[in-house]
Amino acid sequence: MINVRTDLVLEARELYKESHKGEKDLDGIEVIEESEDDISVTTVKVKNEEGAQKIGKPKGDYITIDIPSFTAYDGETMDRVSKVLAEVLGRLIKVDVKKNALVVGLGNWQVTPDALGPKVAEKIMVTRHLQTVMPEAIDDSVRPVSSIAPGVLGITGIETVEIIKGVVEKTKPELVICVDALAARKVQRVNATIQISNTGISPGAGVGNNRKQINEENLGVKVIAIGVPTVVDAITIANDTIDLVIDSLIKNSSSGTDFYKMLKSIDKNEKERLIKEVIYSETSGDMIVTPKDIDLVINSLSKIIANGINMAVQPNMDMEEINKFMG
Amino acid sequence: MINVRTDLVLEARELYKESHKGEKDLDGIEVIEESEDDISVTTVKVKNEEGAQKIGKPKGDYITIDIPSFTAYDGETMDRVSKVLAEVLGRLIKVDVKKNALVVGLGNWQVTPDALGPKVAEKIMVTRHLQTVMPEAIDDSVRPVSSIAPGVLGITGIETVEIIKGVVEKTKPELVICVDALAARKVQRVNATIQISNTGISPGAGVGNNRKQINEENLGVKVIAIGVPTVVDAITIANDTIDLVIDSLIKNSSSGTDFYKMLKSIDKNEKERLIKEVIYSETSGDMIVTPKDIDLVINSLSKIIANGINMAVQPNMDMEEINKFMG
Amino acid sequence: MINVRTDLVLEARELYKESHKGEKDLDGIEVIEESEDDISVTTVKVKNEEGAQKIGKPKGDYITIDIPSFTAYDGETMDRVSKVLAEVLGRLIKVDVKKNALVVGLGNWQVTPDALGPKVAEKIMVTRHLQTVMPEAIDDSVRPVSSIAPGVLGITGIETVEIIKGVVEKTKPELVICVDALAARKVQRVNATIQISNTGISPGAGVGNNRKQINEENLGVKVIAIGVPTVVDAITIANDTIDLVIDSLIKNSSSGTDFYKMLKSIDKNEKERLIKEVIYSETSGDMIVTPKDIDLVINSLSKIIANGINMAVQPNMDMEEINKFMG
Amino acid sequence: MINVRTDLVLEARELYKESHKGEKDLDGIEVIEESEDDISVTTVKVKNEEGAQKIGKPKGDYITIDIPSFTAYDGETMDRVSKVLAEVLGRLIKVDVKKNALVVGLGNWQVTPDALGPKVAEKIMVTRHLQTVMPEAIDDSVRPVSSIAPGVLGITGIETVEIIKGVVEKTKPELVICVDALAARKVQRVNATIQISNTGISPGAGVGNNRKQINEENLGVKVIAIGVPTVVDAITIANDTIDLVIDSLIKNSSSGTDFYKMLKSIDKNEKERLIKEVIYSETSGDMIVTPKDIDLVINSLSKIIANGINMAVQPNMDMEEINKFMG
Repeated sequence: MINVRTDLVLEARELYKESHKGEKDLDGIEVIEESEDDISVTTVKVKNEEGAQKIGKPKGDYITIDIPSFTAYDGETMDRVSKVLAEVLGRLIKVDVKKNALVVGLGNWQVTPDALGPKVAEKIMVTRHLQTVMPEAIDDSVRPVSSIAPGVLGITGIETVEIIKGVVEKTKPELVICVDALAARKVQRVNATIQISNTGISPGAGVGNNRKQINEENLGVKVIAIGVPTVVDAITIANDTIDLVIDSLIKNSSSGTDFYKMLKSIDKNEKERLIKEVIYSETSGDMIVTPKDIDLVINSLSKIIANGINMAVQPNMDMEEINKFMG
Repeated sequence: MINVRTDLVLEARELYKESHKGEKDLDGIEVIEESEDDISVTTVKVKNEEGAQKIGKPKGDYITIDIPSFTAYDGETMDRVSKVLAEVLGRLIKVDVKKNALVVGLGNWQVTPDALGPKVAEKIMVTRHLQTVMPEAIDDSVRPVSSIAPGVLGITGIETVEIIKGVVEKTKPELVICVDALAARKVQRVNATIQISNTGISPGAGVGNNRKQINEENLGVKVIAIGVPTVVDAITIANDTIDLVIDSLIKNSSSGTDFYKMLKSIDKNEKERLIKEVIYSETSGDMIVTPKDIDLVINSLSKIIANGINMAVQPNMDMEEINKFMG
Repeated sequence: MINVRTDLVLEARELYKESHKGEKDLDGIEVIEESEDDISVTTVKVKNEEGAQKIGKPKGDYITIDIPSFTAYDGETMDRVSKVLAEVLGRLIKVDVKKNALVVGLGNWQVTPDALGPKVAEKIMVTRHLQTVMPEAIDDSVRPVSSIAPGVLGITGIETVEIIKGVVEKTKPELVICVDALAARKVQRVNATIQISNTGISPGAGVGNNRKQINEENLGVKVIAIGVPTVVDAITIANDTIDLVIDSLIKNSSSGTDFYKMLKSIDKNEKERLIKEVIYSETSGDMIVTPKDIDLVINSLSKIIANGINMAVQPNMDMEEINKFMG
Repeated sequence: MINVRTDLVLEARELYKESHKGEKDLDGIEVIEESEDDISVTTVKVKNEEGAQKIGKPKGDYITIDIPSFTAYDGETMDRVSKVLAEVLGRLIKVDVKKNALVVGLGNWQVTPDALGPKVAEKIMVTRHLQTVMPEAIDDSVRPVSSIAPGVLGITGIETVEIIKGVVEKTKPELVICVDALAARKVQRVNATIQISNTGISPGAGVGNNRKQINEENLGVKVIAIGVPTVVDAITIANDTIDLVIDSLIKNSSSGTDFYKMLKSIDKNEKERLIKEVIYSETSGDMIVTPKDIDLVINSLSKIIANGINMAVQPNMDMEEINKFMG
């Protein structure tokens, strides 16, 4: 079967609900909706193992920020989204300002839609070294923060979690914040959603490899993950299109007819064959669907997220002070 | 109607043949196939207005080089493709080595899949100025070559053809070679095909705007266009998937039944609605389908094409001498 | 003789005064000093041929903005400098808002300290095409602006002025604003000064080649040049050091002694030999002196200048509206 | 005192010899010269503590490859230098092909002359993960290699040695190869020399901070350092110029005269004052001397070094096979 890929908890919940239509709302899962002007915030709490199994995501809190259309082209909206992100992160980060935090930019800086994490990492206000190097520049109200972009397995030859674990053991942060580009299931969510969770992250999880989780269990410190869907697999688009056509035909036919039966009987092998015909390319490997101006969008998103993190980890500084510090 | 986009003459020919299945082979169009090891070369000659109308492309010669799978990852194959390209270009360029040639890299260097042209432009062996600046470095066997990347309308505010025309009038080249990234209709052709023609090119033509052609008529000099399809519109993928599903269902039903009739009657509005549901994104604008490692692939392709052009316009130098010159 | 290079009128004036110490202040040259908080503005008016000859710069107005230390690291100061630049440009641009303006980013985008011009060009709010492409997005108060980065002779093979002239003839702007990275004579001025003039510019002038001027005479339209010194030639540093040592020794010796005579007699050949010994490199070609973080500084400067130009050419929009437009 | 900075053992040796002219050749230091065509190789063996103190470098072997002029512009010479580097590295790497090696690209990828290390790191043939991910792609003759670019203190907030140590403890390589951009004392050596040693490296050592060494003692595994001088501090240029002028004057004066005495008495404070006057810039911070086309040169050097390392760590593969693997 073609395994449709989503890293987003909201999509996972939709998928479950679609395939279990009779069922009453999900036990073990609580959903809270808020909004700040045109920015809506949805919290999904996966409260127990039953809920976790249903939506295929570990127990924990998942907060999704829906960002307004065209945010990437509008500096003022970007700032507003950063502030909401800072506020949401603040709920999950309840740590002593004296303890140090490590920001990890996951992903491959050579691949535009995967470069979100590294681009955030280079915009983080790094302060951990200042107490030693220029103690006069900072006072006690500044939290020590460090930032790395560990690269991906294909360009380092090392599992990302091994690099992070090595750095964590040497620098002993109290908190790790990971940022990664994700895959969505629907085009509508691409670059439109920021998902924050306290459950860790699997680098390249969607690609199907069984990678080691970057989470509290493996690193020994609290892990907050921030993800933005920047692509949809082309295979997902093809799959969803086929489903839509068939659903549309089924709606227009009476159950019991040969027609209806035939539609119902289109099996997975046939579907897979059709998809391959449309999107398989011997030359080019995995195809993705992405906006044409992805370079610009990734830049904007990295600014939004870096600003949000900078404000959240430095509760004693406002955006202006941080900008002044960053130049 | 959703207008399926292709810049490729081979695809245009296929489209025509698909929709005119009874018809005997295309009058006014001649096709010649050759190959060099695993690199195949197809020449389509659109010989008259009848042929031009049938496939929706101007009269002229279109030569398509099919490059082997994984060429972008293999330096040795890249060199072989460059040599075939040089040879093909040589057939179209029959000009005096003393006259100067202008290479134009079309496209937007800020958008990865559209950056092919500018990346080729910066790898061209530029020699036009040497006769003045360092006459001792070159002799009579070196053809004067210049190279520009004029940008795109959205970042210059100027129609590309206006910039090129301005430069052509000032520098009076005998030949203009334009390089551009194209859109394919099928994923299988993405980054797998180099199309060379002597009919000019429409920048951003596929996007639907009525831009001025970059061709001999408008520039007053011979124009050779080199294009590589680097993306497919997401809309095309969705459209083709729907057609495939319906065709597949039709094949399995008997004509005359209600079922058959219903399939035949799925109208264009319905199709458009389905496509919109799958690929429309308010936030992100136009979606494209592209390989995940497009940054790497564009780099490789720009080397292949720049090497091919460099050899073609400098028939008195071999690849080694050119590399030596280029560093 | 080693010809010490400066593109800056303030330095040219200093050089003249140093070597003509007895002379009273320069005839034909008027100097006006102003300041806005910590940003000082010096206007040098070269009023006639006598003045022009004395300081080796064409007749016209030269306005120099001295930017505060560490501006490149401080967003708020950057904005203040942009506003002063916009105001200064406004004095020189007295043209009808309905006529179109062309911004030209001179320099080589592959060479960091020379990439200032191209980086400004890509941050210009381009509007010239909107009246055709999306007339609903703009109204009459928006001036048509276009922007190009023509590259440098070594990568295009074409004299820059030829490209600009070609574009000017096709697009008929009423005003051309050129932006270029300059060479200073003193390290203290590097990235510390913006020079604006209405006399045009010589691309690569300092390098010693006799390039064609980009000015009103050659282009047929008003030309405003904006330059920032981003490097000092290493040869200048060595030269100035030698002069300083000798001056310092002379001050400590009595005129008439052998010692004094010897110092006075150090001739140009000897000086040249010493300089060569210190800074000549067979392997590396021309050496420049530049700040270590030049990549960051060029980015900041390009933002300052692009913002200043955007405000100056769009007198009906404020910085916020422009930022909103630019994304 | 102005501390003249050099990371190069050959320069350190020259400096010692200049200031100890009477002394016979250096005890505890052995020098061997070889050459391969126009590429010369100098081995300096610092054999004991006496030698180490004299030239201010730790005990160990230092091999310097002098690369021919204009190598960075000539692909064929680049390949020859890579081969010499591979051969030299082979002498120092005498380890089991089954054990894994870690390549570390030191330096800041945002600062062009400091980006050599990171650019080498991304051109390394990484294989360590293949045994797990695609065991069919490799056989026993391929050594497991991994590669990281840990960044610099100012952008990570973490001492580089801490990151490397963390990764070494997790991945247990038998050998670490570090690549870094160095500072030279003489312009003539900039981009003209590759220094290989088995004594480790101090990141940013020359800047004056007391950073932790990256060496066998601190990491617990053999460390080979590869360095290329890509800059000279501007302060060094000024300092050397002053010394040259004074030396030149001294040579022309008779000892015993007032003149001679005065020259001899120019003290360090005066020298420092003169230097500050020439090269101090409040706005711009540390100034460096570098070739104008440093972006191009760093690219070429990173190819040379990455190829040399790839061949050295994969003795069972030739350059062609590696290129094929790398794409």
